[in-house]
Amino acid sequence: MSKNIAIVGATGAVGQEFLKVLEKRNFPINKLKLLASPRSAGKTLTFKGEKIPVEVLKEDSFHDIEIALFSAGGSISKQFAPAAVSYGTIVVDNSSAFRMDPEVPLVIPEINPEDIKNHKGIIANPNCSTIIMLMAIYPIHKLYKVKKIIVSTYQAASGAGAAAMEELEKQARAYLNHEPVPTNVLPYQLAFNVFSHNSAIDLSNGFNQEEIKMIKETKKILHYPEIKVSPTCVRVSTFRAHAESITVELENPADIITIKEAYNNFPGVQVLDDWEKNYFPMPIEVSGKDDVFVGRIRYDYEDNDQKNYSSFCSRRSIIKRRCP
Amino acid sequence: MSKNIAIVGATGAVGQEFLKVLEKRNFPINKLKLLASPRSAGKTLTFKGEKIPVEVLKEDSFHDIEIALFSAGGSISKQFAPAAVSYGTIVVDNSSAFRMDPEVPLVIPEINPEDIKNHKGIIANPNCSTIIMLMAIYPIHKLYKVKKIIVSTYQAASGAGAAAMEELEKQARAYLNHEPVPTNVLPYQLAFNVFSHNSAIDLSNGFNQEEIKMIKETKKILHYPEIKVSPTCVRVSTFRAHAESITVELENPADIITIKEAYNNFPGVQVLDDWEKNYFPMPIEVSGKDDVFVGRIRYDYEDNDQKNYSSFCSRRSIIKRRCP
Repeated sequence: MSKNIAIVGATGAVGQEFLKVLEKRNFPINKLKLLASPRSAGKTLTFKGEKIPVEVLKEDSFHDIEIALFSAGGSISKQFAPAAVSYGTIVVDNSSAFRMDPEVPLVIPEINPEDIKNHKGIIANPNCSTIIMLMAIYPIHKLYKVKKIIVSTYQAASGAGAAAMEELEKQARAYLNHEPVPTNVLPYQLAFNVFSHNSAIDLSNGFNQEEIKMIKETKKILHYPEIKVSPTCVRVSTFRAHAESITVELENPADIITIKEAYNNFPGVQVLDDWEKNYFPMPIEVSGKDDVFVGRIRYDYEDNDQKNYSSFCSRRSIIKRRCP
Repeated sequence: MSKNIAIVGATGAVGQEFLKVLEKRNFPINKLKLLASPRSAGKTLTFKGEKIPVEVLKEDSFHDIEIALFSAGGSISKQFAPAAVSYGTIVVDNSSAFRMDPEVPLVIPEINPEDIKNHKGIIANPNCSTIIMLMAIYPIHKLYKVKKIIVSTYQAASGAGAAAMEELEKQARAYLNHEPVPTNVLPYQLAFNVFSHNSAIDLSNGFNQEEIKMIKETKKILHYPEIKVSPTCVRVSTFRAHAESITVELENPADIITIKEAYNNFPGVQVLDDWEKNYFPMPIEVSGKDDVFVGRIRYDYEDNDQKNYSSFCSRRSIIKRRCP
């Protein structure tokens, strides 16, 4: 049952999380190959107490590999994933390279695991903002059918990689010491600031690439092209764990007690929604956890007199998921 | 023309901003009286190079005062504003004490200045989150009529007062030095974190008091009880300048070029919306400025095929205003 596994981008923020999760879950591994750019080759990483050298990623790196986990950016995936597939390796790709390829399943295991069986060598992992949003919404969608999602994100430095997290720390120290704030990795000061997500803006519509991923990936994962997604993606001064404020419009009237029961029966989501103590999910408390935490679940304030949308009901939540 | 002015809560975060703005705008002042709690009495504050002592607030503090600016919390306003009015003083109150009182005008000068003429001694200033939202929305509302507002906030420590800003700095230093993070003023760690606004939650509907202020004050200021407001208020790790992500549903089809022209003709709002450079308003850049900065103005992604709302159009923006 044990598999030969490769991690592409092993020294990156996500690569290191891959290692932690494989170790924590005791994934049955026969051989573990760590791959990265020539810059990182020669380093060693620790897995289950054993030091493993980081090797240079090459097209023939996969000849003895059954499963390769890629997280080294879209261009590396585009260049090396086909080579891996040619050796019979199954590629699980964390980049955006193949997500919208109709030949590639885009899978959140808790939501559409059945799509995996149609794979042709590559299985794509969605964007982190899409995953946490859909984990929170899917149990409600199954109950009442979601028509529209309006979402604003509170995204951590982690989404921009390990170097961005390091720079956030450097920025904070510099700012507190009244020194010049470095912006070598991040486009602006993130420490004690907020900025619109720095992915390129599509000049035809004003949405940035992060937002467009959330729109398009949602339609594909849910097999529901008609669903409307209105995202605004924003980076905030946190190290890890994205948060989102979500409002949904539903096809059918909803009941919050039923929604909470559905969450309790849905693996991967935890409800943390203590109105009396004003205690809800927070990035510092969910960092390092796999589950998505959901809170502030409530009906729209003026649901009942919203005559134009007689079947309108909304839910808002602040959700977090380890990312990466 | 010069007036006798009192500032109630002169040593607080907002009180000190009052002083700066009065000085910067060269407001015609005959006499300036600084009032605060006994704890702050004896301190001195500087106004136009002159040191002015802080006096203890008493009911008879207002006998020689024409205009009193209150910002010392709702209970102080409730106790002392009627006394000031009894001396003929006009009270401009920054607290929530009288905002929803039907006898008290609730005024954003750029939006409903005509309401001031109905005052009976007290004029209320809206909640900061309401002001920045309505400054951004009002020019659009005048053009196309806003039916519904969905808003998520990114609120700074400043809204919780000067002590909260100081604690954010202490928290950040402690966190970076791996020391215990103090939470004497703020309910949780705010440094490198995000939490749901800490005002009490109305257990009948799940909305916190900050959100309910945004809902109720909007209806009063616009004289438009039917407008629907769906807010989610969140504190982020910034010192000053709240930000908001706003989506509006409009009664009539909108045109963004017309909206931008309307902003340019509306005092108090500046558009900063550079799609090519990915450059939009940021808290660190707008802190200390009076104007509300608006960016990321765009149509809804799937406006055109949203058949249920044929007149639906949406606009989203990240806006900031000095607060305080």
